[in-house]
Amino acid sequence: MRYELYYWPMIQGRGEFVRLALEEGGADYVDVARKPERGGMGMPAMFRLMEAAPLARLPFAPPILKAGGQLVAQTANILLFLGPRLGLVPDDEAGRLWVHQLQLTIADLVTEAHDTHHPIASGLYYEEQKPEALRRARDFTAERLPKFLDYFESVLERNPCGRDWLAGDTPTYADLSMFQVVEGLRYAFPKTMKRLEPGYPLLVALHRRVAARPRIEAYLKSKRRIAFNNEDVFRRYPELDG
Amino acid sequence: MRYELYYWPMIQGRGEFVRLALEEGGADYVDVARKPERGGMGMPAMFRLMEAAPLARLPFAPPILKAGGQLVAQTANILLFLGPRLGLVPDDEAGRLWVHQLQLTIADLVTEAHDTHHPIASGLYYEEQKPEALRRARDFTAERLPKFLDYFESVLERNPCGRDWLAGDTPTYADLSMFQVVEGLRYAFPKTMKRLEPGYPLLVALHRRVAARPRIEAYLKSKRRIAFNNEDVFRRYPELDG
Repeated sequence: MRYELYYWPMIQGRGEFVRLALEEGGADYVDVARKPERGGMGMPAMFRLMEAAPLARLPFAPPILKAGGQLVAQTANILLFLGPRLGLVPDDEAGRLWVHQLQLTIADLVTEAHDTHHPIASGLYYEEQKPEALRRARDFTAERLPKFLDYFESVLERNPCGRDWLAGDTPTYADLSMFQVVEGLRYAFPKTMKRLEPGYPLLVALHRRVAARPRIEAYLKSKRRIAFNNEDVFRRYPELDG
Repeated sequence: MRYELYYWPMIQGRGEFVRLALEEGGADYVDVARKPERGGMGMPAMFRLMEAAPLARLPFAPPILKAGGQLVAQTANILLFLGPRLGLVPDDEAGRLWVHQLQLTIADLVTEAHDTHHPIASGLYYEEQKPEALRRARDFTAERLPKFLDYFESVLERNPCGRDWLAGDTPTYADLSMFQVVEGLRYAFPKTMKRLEPGYPLLVALHRRVAARPRIEAYLKSKRRIAFNNEDVFRRYPELDG
């Protein structure tokens, strides 16, 4: 099965959580919008897909995964679909729900990190909502971020199978996403993370452990990995880094 | 199986999406935090559950569903769990993923509706973020809300099984949640909804159709249904209703 991923080609964004799962799972996939238009791909292919009039199961927004005739959208839902196919979830239903629950909490954290630079409207520029962004970022770095990190550190502490992974004793898609969040937070809030990280040794070790997975390591060094930038979910505006 | 729901007892909130599914599914359930403390329930029971030291699978926040020995949290994840058990999803995996995808998009809309009155910090009062709330609500009612409603109307239009339900030809948990969103939006933004609703005849009909389901109708008239209020996700601040 060759998977097709449809996502904005210039950012990691929410598509990156899917890319990491596809990479770690050794999946055969094509990142459609990053391929040349002359081959029928690129951004036009993504827009064609999203506007296809006969589409019964219309996605609201990218990322979108095409698997044969099936379209799946919403990041966490794509991972729910891919998890068992790529060996990135436990075998039992309760374990799979637990991993999905963690993923949805990660998604909430990602939304809040995004909203630090866009607290008023995603359709306006950062520069048009800067005073509000300063206030929201101050709350995020002082209150919300530590609350989320406390939670995930505590999940690692309590894992009855050991403290290497969030759920069970092998990596799941939630671990890959957690890696990406730490990576993104370090890019966006370097000062804050430097201050906070000593309090979260298990999360820091999890990040290192994921980065050292052979397929992830190869991916991060490859051209397939897009660099962080200020069009993305995680952005570096020094004034927001409290 | 008697389900136990743990959620804030004074609001509909995100717990309401779970309550509606339990009600429509005719489930045997107890809304623990709304029961008397002297019977070992009430809010103390919820806090005891959330702080239980030996809990391996710690929830981040309510709502939490207890089903025998299993705890499930994150609203959409609880519905994913309940869907097949209460007959509120299609039989096939692709259909279930589609319903979950819709639910996650509804969850995004709910978060954006909430953030109209709390654009800066959920830990601060509305009165402490009023100028920002005015700006965010203006964008929500003018841009984001129509975008979401356009989307869901279009999903109804495209449903190959007819235009009665979002997915397939029987109600799913996503339909119940969509009802709740329309209900909440009417409470929070009556002027905006009066202006917008004529453009969304299928969504308005879906809302009416859910409200007329015998079990839902009985529930809405019962004391189990908490009234909307300004501690909730959907709040009526006339100045935010553009």
